[in-house]
Amino acid sequence: MYGYTSNKEDYLRRLRRIEGQIRGLAKMVDEDKYCIDILTQVSAATKALQSVALGLMEDHLGHCVAEAVTEGGEVADAKVREASEAIARLVRS
Amino acid sequence: MYGYTSNKEDYLRRLRRIEGQIRGLAKMVDEDKYCIDILTQVSAATKALQSVALGLMEDHLGHCVAEAVTEGGEVADAKVREASEAIARLVRS
Amino acid sequence: MYGYTSNKEDYLRRLRRIEGQIRGLAKMVDEDKYCIDILTQVSAATKALQSVALGLMEDHLGHCVAEAVTEGGEVADAKVREASEAIARLVRS
Amino acid sequence: MYGYTSNKEDYLRRLRRIEGQIRGLAKMVDEDKYCIDILTQVSAATKALQSVALGLMEDHLGHCVAEAVTEGGEVADAKVREASEAIARLVRS
Repeated sequence: MYGYTSNKEDYLRRLRRIEGQIRGLAKMVDEDKYCIDILTQVSAATKALQSVALGLMEDHLGHCVAEAVTEGGEVADAKVREASEAIARLVRS
Repeated sequence: MYGYTSNKEDYLRRLRRIEGQIRGLAKMVDEDKYCIDILTQVSAATKALQSVALGLMEDHLGHCVAEAVTEGGEVADAKVREASEAIARLVRS
Repeated sequence: MYGYTSNKEDYLRRLRRIEGQIRGLAKMVDEDKYCIDILTQVSAATKALQSVALGLMEDHLGHCVAEAVTEGGEVADAKVREASEAIARLVRS
Repeated sequence: MYGYTSNKEDYLRRLRRIEGQIRGLAKMVDEDKYCIDILTQVSAATKALQSVALGLMEDHLGHCVAEAVTEGGEVADAKVREASEAIARLVRS
């Protein structure tokens, strides 16, 4: 059980929609749509993916990190470190 | 014919791979994988999408924008404006 | 006392360096330097700022959020929420 | 003369304001302000910097790149390549 488990259906629904957006992008390329229109859809898919990531991170902080912090000690430090590295990857991607 | 047309097969291949990455993300959620591992894959898919966008933008500048600029006048200004707005959307997403 | 207090001198030193980078940017514009060279320096300053933000966030999670989580209840939920909103602002900026 | 020359005073004014924002950040750290309030200001400064970058890029495309494209040949290709690399650095920072 992780932080996102209770919202699992919601995440699956959002990821299926993003998968559809990517398939739509391939269709646009295949049908020679205008570059800027494709780029607009890429930005939309990227935002949707980021939004999933931010949700997963919030669930992670409120659940896995919170549990580790309550335990304290090295386990807590390691979880905070790990979450911070994942935040850095999100900010830089 | 747009700037990306000559690289169409390459873009389609990369988009199919990203579609697979998104499907993999849904599978990870469905199988209750660890949040941070899912987030790492989200960052990878986001970077792959951005890379497609940057390729499309370069093709667009070297082809559609270049053609408009050679024509000059208002057509050129409008194309530069449109490309700049798309760049802003990429930077902000 | 906040999470960053023990690293205060380090943050101040980094922010002074970023202030110098911004002043350097203004000097480049004033001296009509080449656009791309200015943009390269803007990217460097942006990365330095983000790096400060990621450090502050890690200190915040390991200190303020950790304390609130140990207290538990609504205080903990509010801190996790607040941190998540700040992470979202970083990812989107 | 570059694309941004005619807007030079505007860029200098914006960069001076960002310099003030960075100095304000150092003051907040020095006065032990709350982490999240500092992070909010970091996001604001980052957005202001990005906005300067997007302006410089638009001026660059409409002026330096446009001129090179009108010349054509290898000069044009090199300018489009160079601009695309700068866009990639902006998107990834």
